[in-house]
Amino acid sequence: MKLQLALDLVTKEQAIECLTQTMDFIDIVEIGTPFIIREGINSIREIHNEFPQKPFLADVKIMDGGKPEATYAFEAGADIVTVLGVAEDATILNVIEVAKHFGKKVMVDMIAVPDIEKRTEKIDRFGADYICVHTAFDIQHTGKSPLEELEILKKVIQNSRAAVAGGINAGTINEIVRAEPEIIVVGGAIVNAKEKKKAAAAFHELLSQN
Amino acid sequence: MKLQLALDLVTKEQAIECLTQTMDFIDIVEIGTPFIIREGINSIREIHNEFPQKPFLADVKIMDGGKPEATYAFEAGADIVTVLGVAEDATILNVIEVAKHFGKKVMVDMIAVPDIEKRTEKIDRFGADYICVHTAFDIQHTGKSPLEELEILKKVIQNSRAAVAGGINAGTINEIVRAEPEIIVVGGAIVNAKEKKKAAAAFHELLSQN
Repeated sequence: MKLQLALDLVTKEQAIECLTQTMDFIDIVEIGTPFIIREGINSIREIHNEFPQKPFLADVKIMDGGKPEATYAFEAGADIVTVLGVAEDATILNVIEVAKHFGKKVMVDMIAVPDIEKRTEKIDRFGADYICVHTAFDIQHTGKSPLEELEILKKVIQNSRAAVAGGINAGTINEIVRAEPEIIVVGGAIVNAKEKKKAAAAFHELLSQN
Repeated sequence: MKLQLALDLVTKEQAIECLTQTMDFIDIVEIGTPFIIREGINSIREIHNEFPQKPFLADVKIMDGGKPEATYAFEAGADIVTVLGVAEDATILNVIEVAKHFGKKVMVDMIAVPDIEKRTEKIDRFGADYICVHTAFDIQHTGKSPLEELEILKKVIQNSRAAVAGGINAGTINEIVRAEPEIIVVGGAIVNAKEKKKAAAAFHELLSQN
């Protein structure tokens, strides 16, 4: 099981500081959507250059223009690029095609997909490397967790690997781990922790046992 | 009827050159999603400063984090911000709330929405300024046009105003105009024209008669 750290609402300096503290415990570094909107895609290269030993995911959440947008992200040094599960099939297929060309990977973000089972069956056949169930930040305050969708995802996928995101913290990580995703995305529970290194180490320890 | 020029796959220099030629015929300048991904949101201010007389739309296609992402765009000088129609209701409502705070506007992009009628009815009640039917770039080669969706949109909306996007060119503009949207988005048909000023002037003339 891999730990992906999502860097969303932080400055470049805060991101580098957070990674310096937590890098030993992180498997994948995610440059989040708001970060990319603010700083532009080339910020990925700047941060990746500081931490060349880890794979970087560009959370561009591609919705259209699969080829040009994925190309920008891979050319900026991303190892994994996200495309939305609600996008047209053609967009997802275009992103997968570009990823293969670069020898890189695609994660399909299933945020706000109405029927997870049906959509996963189709995207799993497309050859996406990862399919990620994801409770939107904007509805996490309702108490919704991605666990139920993760269990559906795990039952359905045959080719892709499962990932999960959306407000995962110390209180919910155990039930998530039991559902055995390949990648668990944690953001605020590490980034906003007073002791970031300690928080990352605790997630790392739990995941490395599973 | 207003003409919105979408600047997607161009450099900052090309965007400024294109706007210099076409500005007299354009009502709204759109800084497109791939442009924002590449250059970051502050590129909006840089281009807007060159053309302060026109409203700028930031096509950020917000899918989550409605408040922070809309805030970034408005703080960077956007007059209109896009949010995806496939996003969670809470995300759309958050973007509308932020827009009201800034005294600015929201366009909901209906790209890849499966049921235009049903979703439009709901979003129209949310108080979005514009609802935009939009045929994805990645499926335009199939011959799909946004006209049919525009006709559904026009029948349903009561509060929002209609916009339309997706491969509109000199061959399709007449039927689009007859459906009477408030905003027509044109990209490649102007940006990739050999004579950009002439192309923009022709669209402008047609729209100003309607």
